[in-house]
Amino acid sequence: MIVVLKAGVGPEKRERLIRWLEDQGVRVQVSQGEFQTVLGLVGDPSRIDLDLVGSLDFVEKVARVTEPFRYSTRRQHPDDLTVNAGGVPVGGGHFAMIAGPCSVETEEQIVSVARAVKAAGANLLRGGAFKPRTSPYDFSGLKARGLELLRLAKAETGLPIVSELMDPRDLELFEDVDVIQVGARNMQNYDLLRELGRIDRPVLLKRGPASTLRELLLSAEYILSGGNERVILCERGIRTFADYTRNTLDLSAVPMLRELSPLPVIVDPSHATGMARLVPSMALAAAAAGADGLMIEVHNDPMSALCDGAQALRPEEFAELVRKVRAVRGVLEDGTPAPKGEKRMSDR
Amino acid sequence: MIVVLKAGVGPEKRERLIRWLEDQGVRVQVSQGEFQTVLGLVGDPSRIDLDLVGSLDFVEKVARVTEPFRYSTRRQHPDDLTVNAGGVPVGGGHFAMIAGPCSVETEEQIVSVARAVKAAGANLLRGGAFKPRTSPYDFSGLKARGLELLRLAKAETGLPIVSELMDPRDLELFEDVDVIQVGARNMQNYDLLRELGRIDRPVLLKRGPASTLRELLLSAEYILSGGNERVILCERGIRTFADYTRNTLDLSAVPMLRELSPLPVIVDPSHATGMARLVPSMALAAAAAGADGLMIEVHNDPMSALCDGAQALRPEEFAELVRKVRAVRGVLEDGTPAPKGEKRMSDR
Amino acid sequence: MIVVLKAGVGPEKRERLIRWLEDQGVRVQVSQGEFQTVLGLVGDPSRIDLDLVGSLDFVEKVARVTEPFRYSTRRQHPDDLTVNAGGVPVGGGHFAMIAGPCSVETEEQIVSVARAVKAAGANLLRGGAFKPRTSPYDFSGLKARGLELLRLAKAETGLPIVSELMDPRDLELFEDVDVIQVGARNMQNYDLLRELGRIDRPVLLKRGPASTLRELLLSAEYILSGGNERVILCERGIRTFADYTRNTLDLSAVPMLRELSPLPVIVDPSHATGMARLVPSMALAAAAAGADGLMIEVHNDPMSALCDGAQALRPEEFAELVRKVRAVRGVLEDGTPAPKGEKRMSDR
Amino acid sequence: MIVVLKAGVGPEKRERLIRWLEDQGVRVQVSQGEFQTVLGLVGDPSRIDLDLVGSLDFVEKVARVTEPFRYSTRRQHPDDLTVNAGGVPVGGGHFAMIAGPCSVETEEQIVSVARAVKAAGANLLRGGAFKPRTSPYDFSGLKARGLELLRLAKAETGLPIVSELMDPRDLELFEDVDVIQVGARNMQNYDLLRELGRIDRPVLLKRGPASTLRELLLSAEYILSGGNERVILCERGIRTFADYTRNTLDLSAVPMLRELSPLPVIVDPSHATGMARLVPSMALAAAAAGADGLMIEVHNDPMSALCDGAQALRPEEFAELVRKVRAVRGVLEDGTPAPKGEKRMSDR
Repeated sequence: MIVVLKAGVGPEKRERLIRWLEDQGVRVQVSQGEFQTVLGLVGDPSRIDLDLVGSLDFVEKVARVTEPFRYSTRRQHPDDLTVNAGGVPVGGGHFAMIAGPCSVETEEQIVSVARAVKAAGANLLRGGAFKPRTSPYDFSGLKARGLELLRLAKAETGLPIVSELMDPRDLELFEDVDVIQVGARNMQNYDLLRELGRIDRPVLLKRGPASTLRELLLSAEYILSGGNERVILCERGIRTFADYTRNTLDLSAVPMLRELSPLPVIVDPSHATGMARLVPSMALAAAAAGADGLMIEVHNDPMSALCDGAQALRPEEFAELVRKVRAVRGVLEDGTPAPKGEKRMSDR
Repeated sequence: MIVVLKAGVGPEKRERLIRWLEDQGVRVQVSQGEFQTVLGLVGDPSRIDLDLVGSLDFVEKVARVTEPFRYSTRRQHPDDLTVNAGGVPVGGGHFAMIAGPCSVETEEQIVSVARAVKAAGANLLRGGAFKPRTSPYDFSGLKARGLELLRLAKAETGLPIVSELMDPRDLELFEDVDVIQVGARNMQNYDLLRELGRIDRPVLLKRGPASTLRELLLSAEYILSGGNERVILCERGIRTFADYTRNTLDLSAVPMLRELSPLPVIVDPSHATGMARLVPSMALAAAAAGADGLMIEVHNDPMSALCDGAQALRPEEFAELVRKVRAVRGVLEDGTPAPKGEKRMSDR
Repeated sequence: MIVVLKAGVGPEKRERLIRWLEDQGVRVQVSQGEFQTVLGLVGDPSRIDLDLVGSLDFVEKVARVTEPFRYSTRRQHPDDLTVNAGGVPVGGGHFAMIAGPCSVETEEQIVSVARAVKAAGANLLRGGAFKPRTSPYDFSGLKARGLELLRLAKAETGLPIVSELMDPRDLELFEDVDVIQVGARNMQNYDLLRELGRIDRPVLLKRGPASTLRELLLSAEYILSGGNERVILCERGIRTFADYTRNTLDLSAVPMLRELSPLPVIVDPSHATGMARLVPSMALAAAAAGADGLMIEVHNDPMSALCDGAQALRPEEFAELVRKVRAVRGVLEDGTPAPKGEKRMSDR
Repeated sequence: MIVVLKAGVGPEKRERLIRWLEDQGVRVQVSQGEFQTVLGLVGDPSRIDLDLVGSLDFVEKVARVTEPFRYSTRRQHPDDLTVNAGGVPVGGGHFAMIAGPCSVETEEQIVSVARAVKAAGANLLRGGAFKPRTSPYDFSGLKARGLELLRLAKAETGLPIVSELMDPRDLELFEDVDVIQVGARNMQNYDLLRELGRIDRPVLLKRGPASTLRELLLSAEYILSGGNERVILCERGIRTFADYTRNTLDLSAVPMLRELSPLPVIVDPSHATGMARLVPSMALAAAAAGADGLMIEVHNDPMSALCDGAQALRPEEFAELVRKVRAVRGVLEDGTPAPKGEKRMSDR
């Protein structure tokens, strides 16, 4: 941390601040310039309230120099991490193609969608059993029964399953769920995150609609610092003034997160746009931006879906999309259309 | 709900949509105009996915006409609701002046702050025992011990206490807490909200930093529909591009929420601005905008606060603020400086 | 400017950067710490591209220490500036109560509104002759004829007039306009600003809907640095995700701008909210936040206004508002209801 | 336009509103439902203030059914429009690869960059002569001399040139400029737009940082309705809370604008991200999202660029990017790596 004092601040105030900073457990290097004094803080500044220091009337500026990331940063792991998601590798060149319905509705529905998305090239099956809904009067998922149906679909197709957990008290119901999803609204539900830091299952952590990348990575730190290193980050759109789409998909988060962190970064264009007809474009864009995977809503009968049907693709649209995503990934890898990634996407 | 079809849509598509809508349990009134067809939906449209209908290629527009609010709306309760907060009435002309430190730190600290804010005119004491922190490496509160210290301060001063609950599993620890706060990050933690719908204690529900007023009211519905009618809404700043303050305090939410809902609406200028020196101005502005209360961070030693000291007032600053807030409320009530509200603020 | 180098950067890269910085005309102070090197830049860094330096792979952080403000800052003018607006002082304790219709429509309309707002306590008359409209097919003002009608209203009432200029080529038409308004959409129309820096008339500069306070002040610098020191800043709402109001009124900008700059700061709650029924609350809140004035749309027949009628008050509502604003200002000044400001508001 | 009245509104209020609406020049169809009354407005509602009607206490909802677009909509031109940009077709399957420095600095610089980008596959040359700068103290371009140097570069390479016009009074200096750019800050400078509606040159219209797609298209309407049909739209990032990049590139705007409008849509990833190292990813993502072109900053010596060097690619990086963009476009067209688009991009 760097603290810049205002020009003309007297030695007394300066010394008082230095003493207080040292009391918080850091060492202070003073660098006296012609017009200003810069204090460099050495040691662990995590106990220091940066805003408090910045609010002092004789302080010009406070700048955080090192971020408090310990596990989610490339400083720690220079190479990409590959997360084992129920046998499917994600990250480090391995692409996750996660597909399925927003909500699990019936056995017939989830099994038929699972078969269809597997045939189309998906390597993970998504399906919501516990659904966060803005209104208490909307359908909120089949809960335990939904997870049961997902397990049936997994048994039928061999696809590992991804499903959202909202409440730490439901964790035991998720025993056979291969990847536990933390939804955007729960990205800063710290007790939930801590709980997931104690288990040995991959966590798909969605970015909150008003969260910065720093906050997303710090939420990941809650899980990682608990001992669970299997975190997959997911961009799914942020809230802005733009009103044609449900959220604004922030694709620059993909290369930025990949620069900052070794964790895999995937993209959910279905929730981001809220419109099935924009999903293929944004899915291809995400792949071109370097994402490590996609999470796509697919439904065999979008008109009768109980939830978010507007953003679901039909299986044949999804199959066409998978084909193009593979080709785009091939371009990223070597500029040719026979992507090295193609094999990986279905090699289980 | 109103569905406007595009000009020139054939009768077959129209009939198919009407049948599908009726299958979802609503009655459809067709109004055929010269250039367009308007479908009016009568009944309970809560099962219908508005976005899905809007995404159909022959639909021009879908408009929600009635919101799904059942309890939080003036249609239900035309008059202001007054919430009994540990004996202190809030709303319906009764002003809540909630003050205290961000975090409970020591017995000496919380008791001395409690005495100071009571003397200055506060009628409720706030203090965080469970603290949501962006980073897992930051101080996250004294937890159970913090609640114990709050109870001591309550015993000393008689001030009812307000403290934040983050995890439903901690609810039993909050037995003597008069008002349970749901923080901005947990505004859409639906399992927590449902749990709070089952208890008989007031809930102070903070608006999420990216939440619309509609979403805030629907989160309130989670609590209200569970049977707990004692909800206090709190505006605490939204996330925008503006970068001089931590958040952007959206004061127009105050008259807007008061128009939509009979629930009391209070304002937290401390978290909204993150800077103690802006708090008095914004607190006065909130009172002038018609808020039913304020939640202000006060600390006896801001420089050594472990958390958010930058935004805390000193007790003497708070006392001066209380005096002015009363005068502003007097202006709202009758244009004179001897506010009727003055009595109420300390009349317990 | 402070440049922090990453740990372990070699002396060669460091020296190359220092040489390059010195070539841009600054002196560089090197402060070598245990873990990092801090470069302090002395002199005029205005030619240096902060983002470029920050994008170098061996630079950890770049922090601007001194802002490029020369005229709009309290460093230059510690005391409030009072702007003479056609004889009415604004700022430095003098409150501007600017009122009138969104658009000038007819002689009868503007003269009757002018009389009504003067009687109610306005000290400046607003009225749009050149109207920026999102759609080219909407009414865009009476132009030269509108300015003529404004002059008539001024002659009738003695109220100085405020009107918006959009195109520097129209400047000569504005000869008798006492205060020239730059609308939010033109806040960064730099050629227009430069032109206004060359004249000797007050400029009311509205904050753009996506502008930071820094950008607003730098736009003011365009005018001030040209030699025209009579700038009034105006907060009128920013664009956010919040959707109940047209814009989100950022009232914390008022105390923040007043801290940063000696220029008067006024607030336009009519455009910010877009709803007449929210205007009184937000006007009072603005006064309580310490604004130096208000700009309020008043119309004698809101239902037939050609433009923005939804946000205009009727004269009697405005008169009631003026009374309360005066009382709130009295509270700010001395906590009593007989405001010192009352006299000032009408003392011409 | 659809106006929904609240339940229980009496016939008198209803009739008064209908009369007033008819006075504004529309015909009103009344559709009386069981619980609500819907008024459908037939004719030209452009004179009606939607917000005013919506603010009436007995109106539940107002919904715009048809947008006021006349020229920029697919209803008017179902097929893609191709804009002739100095001989280079843009849109309708023709890809614009616009490259060059942010600012024109010297003859040597602009000619050498022009040669380099042409060799790399650019088909249009960009270069700023008039630069909008947030601060009046920053370099604001070589102005007329800059345009002269651009003409030299055009003469040397044959590349048509694109440059930004800020002030209508400078229009005559732009005589040989093939494409006139309107910058994001001037997207709602309506006098400038009207002026450009009167000339016969293509206009590259950048989306403002806080502008919705509706507003962008309405700004395009200013130009189109004046008689100039050669408008190219450009997404260049919007302002959000996200703070790692300068702006948030809103790529979903690409398929959405292409659905709404037949005008070509290009993307500027350089200004959107402000960081050269993110430009290739976002450029590829834009191509994958279906953009009709890219505008990329390229500089032969980024470290000494006077303006925005942090976001400029070096020529060799740009050449590599062009190769990949062509391959991605090939994927979109037929899923193979030999893009049909390749030819078009250099076929002048």
